[in-house]
Amino acid sequence: MTDIPIILASKSPRRKLLLDQIDLGCTVIPSGIQEDKHTGQPPEEYAIDLATAKAAAISEKYPDALVIGADTIVVLEKEILGKPTDRDDAFLILSKLSGKTHTVITGMSILSKKFSVSDNFFEKTMVSFKQINDSDIYRYIDTYKPFDKAGSYGIQDQFSVWIQKIEGCFFNVMGFPLSAFFERYRSIMKRIENNNRNPVGGME
Amino acid sequence: MTDIPIILASKSPRRKLLLDQIDLGCTVIPSGIQEDKHTGQPPEEYAIDLATAKAAAISEKYPDALVIGADTIVVLEKEILGKPTDRDDAFLILSKLSGKTHTVITGMSILSKKFSVSDNFFEKTMVSFKQINDSDIYRYIDTYKPFDKAGSYGIQDQFSVWIQKIEGCFFNVMGFPLSAFFERYRSIMKRIENNNRNPVGGME
Repeated sequence: MTDIPIILASKSPRRKLLLDQIDLGCTVIPSGIQEDKHTGQPPEEYAIDLATAKAAAISEKYPDALVIGADTIVVLEKEILGKPTDRDDAFLILSKLSGKTHTVITGMSILSKKFSVSDNFFEKTMVSFKQINDSDIYRYIDTYKPFDKAGSYGIQDQFSVWIQKIEGCFFNVMGFPLSAFFERYRSIMKRIENNNRNPVGGME
Repeated sequence: MTDIPIILASKSPRRKLLLDQIDLGCTVIPSGIQEDKHTGQPPEEYAIDLATAKAAAISEKYPDALVIGADTIVVLEKEILGKPTDRDDAFLILSKLSGKTHTVITGMSILSKKFSVSDNFFEKTMVSFKQINDSDIYRYIDTYKPFDKAGSYGIQDQFSVWIQKIEGCFFNVMGFPLSAFFERYRSIMKRIENNNRNPVGGME
């Protein structure tokens, strides 16, 4: 396969772990993009916009690389719940989610200037919580400090006992839709391979 | 809380990891029960029977402990697909599952002689695979050697790229339904606590 450096434009350690899980070596270079610009567009668009902004900022600096941007949000009854600002906010968010089903949306952006790649998409997973009482919520927050997580919970930590069911991609809830990503990544790589073999205008 | 030793009657390292994930310390003592006795009963019953046999064998020897038995099977169109016997069998199983939705059933048994606990249940999760071609199946088998896994795949390893979606508990597919287990575990512990405080026939 063509050897193209892959850059993950995200500071989430979980996303890096998930790319390791599918044996895809990458370099992590966070974009520094702030995640506070929701201006009323649909949640899917908002997540993709943020993912694209992250990937674009890095792709500008590394035009030869394949840059991956991602942004995960939690949506409950049309309200976007991002990362909690503090302990009280985390409590408020988890209280809202308790006993209900919410949607986790990850916006994804795969960009490469050199190879003319611009693939932006999103993945949705429905997550149903059991009813959680206040003292369990506080105990979780104080033990796990989920302040870097959209929705204030980690599906892969002790919080898993409160997850009644999910519908969709589990890894999407962790912040990276592995299966959807891999399908697109493969087809991008195949296209790049073919272009390398048969460059536009090239003749033998 | 009453301090009762917990024994996991399973040699699966994944089950131990999942109990660690919810901070439940346990000792692992495999039962040695063979998993090859399917005699035509419904899959749910079969999984529970095996889980109960595993837990009972250990509970006999450790009557003071809370013993957890578990057995996970994969069911495709009424056919039970267990652990593969070898490379060819793993290929056969994954070829059957490719492009289809199957059910993962974990039978669970929680037993304690001393505390009169006998709680047996099962959890089901639907798992949908993408279409996987033969060379990808062989590459997966040869790299990951999934011979200790029902259905010949690990949802938490590189195989995750082929999982289109799941419906239900993710950890059930890894072999241990954390959420369903924890709910029952808590209510068992509460009952034991209450009995200790108000023993039958006890008066002050």
